[in-house]
Amino acid sequence: MSRNASHADLTQLINHQVRLAARPVGLPTMDNWQMTTEPVAQPELDGIVVQVLMISLDPAMRGWMNEGRSYIAPVGLGDVMRAGGVGRVIASSNRNWQVGDHVSGAFGVQQFCTLSPTAIRAAGVARIDPGSAPLSAWLNALGMPGMTGYFGLLEVGQPKSGETVVVSGAAGAVGQMVGQVARIQGCRVVGIAGGKAKCDFVVNELGFDACIDYKAGSVRDGLKQHCPQGVDIYFDNVGGDILDTVLTRINMRARIVICGAISQYNATEQVQGPKNYLSLLVNRARMEGIVVFDWAARYPEAVQQIAGWMREGRLQSREHVLDGGVQRFPEALNMLFTGENFGKLVLKVAD
Amino acid sequence: MSRNASHADLTQLINHQVRLAARPVGLPTMDNWQMTTEPVAQPELDGIVVQVLMISLDPAMRGWMNEGRSYIAPVGLGDVMRAGGVGRVIASSNRNWQVGDHVSGAFGVQQFCTLSPTAIRAAGVARIDPGSAPLSAWLNALGMPGMTGYFGLLEVGQPKSGETVVVSGAAGAVGQMVGQVARIQGCRVVGIAGGKAKCDFVVNELGFDACIDYKAGSVRDGLKQHCPQGVDIYFDNVGGDILDTVLTRINMRARIVICGAISQYNATEQVQGPKNYLSLLVNRARMEGIVVFDWAARYPEAVQQIAGWMREGRLQSREHVLDGGVQRFPEALNMLFTGENFGKLVLKVAD
Repeated sequence: MSRNASHADLTQLINHQVRLAARPVGLPTMDNWQMTTEPVAQPELDGIVVQVLMISLDPAMRGWMNEGRSYIAPVGLGDVMRAGGVGRVIASSNRNWQVGDHVSGAFGVQQFCTLSPTAIRAAGVARIDPGSAPLSAWLNALGMPGMTGYFGLLEVGQPKSGETVVVSGAAGAVGQMVGQVARIQGCRVVGIAGGKAKCDFVVNELGFDACIDYKAGSVRDGLKQHCPQGVDIYFDNVGGDILDTVLTRINMRARIVICGAISQYNATEQVQGPKNYLSLLVNRARMEGIVVFDWAARYPEAVQQIAGWMREGRLQSREHVLDGGVQRFPEALNMLFTGENFGKLVLKVAD
Repeated sequence: MSRNASHADLTQLINHQVRLAARPVGLPTMDNWQMTTEPVAQPELDGIVVQVLMISLDPAMRGWMNEGRSYIAPVGLGDVMRAGGVGRVIASSNRNWQVGDHVSGAFGVQQFCTLSPTAIRAAGVARIDPGSAPLSAWLNALGMPGMTGYFGLLEVGQPKSGETVVVSGAAGAVGQMVGQVARIQGCRVVGIAGGKAKCDFVVNELGFDACIDYKAGSVRDGLKQHCPQGVDIYFDNVGGDILDTVLTRINMRARIVICGAISQYNATEQVQGPKNYLSLLVNRARMEGIVVFDWAARYPEAVQQIAGWMREGRLQSREHVLDGGVQRFPEALNMLFTGENFGKLVLKVAD
């Protein structure tokens, strides 16, 4: 296929998109979204067109829908919703990218993404190897959640062999990675997840030492039972009451890695602050935020390490793949907040 | 004076004491205290007797009155209230301590403290030099508050020249030290204090760049005005709304040093957690607790450094000295919580 052969075909293609129509209050509804279609945009000189194959669903998306200062600009009203994805280059006039290349990047919730050379950089487009791991794994263990868990645990958490690591959202994309990497570091690993199926998965398939089902009983009792030596690292994906409970069980010089607060993202009133934060004082402990983009220069090193552990059978990447195309995005996103996903949630858009 | 000369005199002395009679709910009242008198206890072999000259009043005392786990055991019901102080050795059969030595240590709220060799260590008794700084300074810049501010700022806060440091309780014992040391490190220093007199003192006498009067206006507006480059270090002595407000103004990789939460110590319901804690995530910032006792091995180094700055006129130690003896302790303690003290609060017990 020559570099320009497919350009003529692009005019035949319709691009289905999901745009942010209104900023949500609480849990997003269909009123917050607009479904649009338009012809695929022609690439400019040195641009590319990517056909999106899978879209990543991330709790952080809820924050991107809000107005106001954060670690990244909000999605503009009327804009295609921001999303990471994997896809295939179907047109290119850029010598660095060949038609047929598999790539990951922030392609948005749409079927096709036309990128200028500037946009290629801005979207963080990277070549991926679908031969070394399934496509969906490039949105999970080898993608942003994997990078978040890897650097958040190792660089912010600084685990030492023999320490006890607790992670909430344990069956989720980041939680899986944190627990498995902590185990590889020689830590005792205790997950917190909702429901027996997730807890069983985390213990039996991912090799956590224990998992506390917060829907079935008291998290405090679970921590007492499963963390007899206290908690040295708590990797928090949920915030709210669970954060407060873990704060009562931390050890001297514990590290609390603040990665997310999914229990609070749809709060219509104030975020619930950790009322037990003075445990940081009593225990000379540290609470610190992680944003994965800070570690971008070291993604290749992490991908190589994690892919190696996967090949050796020491680390799994479990995805929950939904069919149905971009139209199903609104429903899929809300599954994250109701806890219906089992593993990293991914929306399949094309084969 | 021979080492044993004064032992006979001890039997003539009456020791007035303040004991914890009941655990307070909210602000302590007279019902929480019991005034007792007893003869001064005879020292055992290698013990000493200290006449207390000044007693330190510290916000942390409120925490010691509560039941339950903290960084230090609670004061027992019926026990003499724990307090740091300075005093003079009036009897000694221990070759390391001479009658007439000036000492600091945890002597409690009483006029005389009889210490066994074990208790000398437990109380952290240390020789002080009243010639190099006034006695009261040994409870302030050269005492626990000074050590707290010094190590909390330098070791936990890690200031760099040119950064902006904000400290609450700026006119208090720890706040004074934090701001002055930050200034010496080349930082921009902004205090938060209650009332014009305290703010003027902090700016005009201690050399802070600015001080926000939280009683006179909006702390948020004050931070916008006085921290145009944002906040790199926030040294928190107060908690509550002020902590939450500062969290909205922090810079990337900011450090929040949690030293205390005086606004919350008398809370009869739940402590107010920082609802803006997710600013730690957005800004990859860190919140960490400081407990001064961790740095005990390095107190001599800090005392030497701070005393040097005092001699050079670069650092001041301002105390608020109350007369009236141990009987005035209950009233004096509550002055901390109503903000009536101006500088480090000290109760004079004897000359």
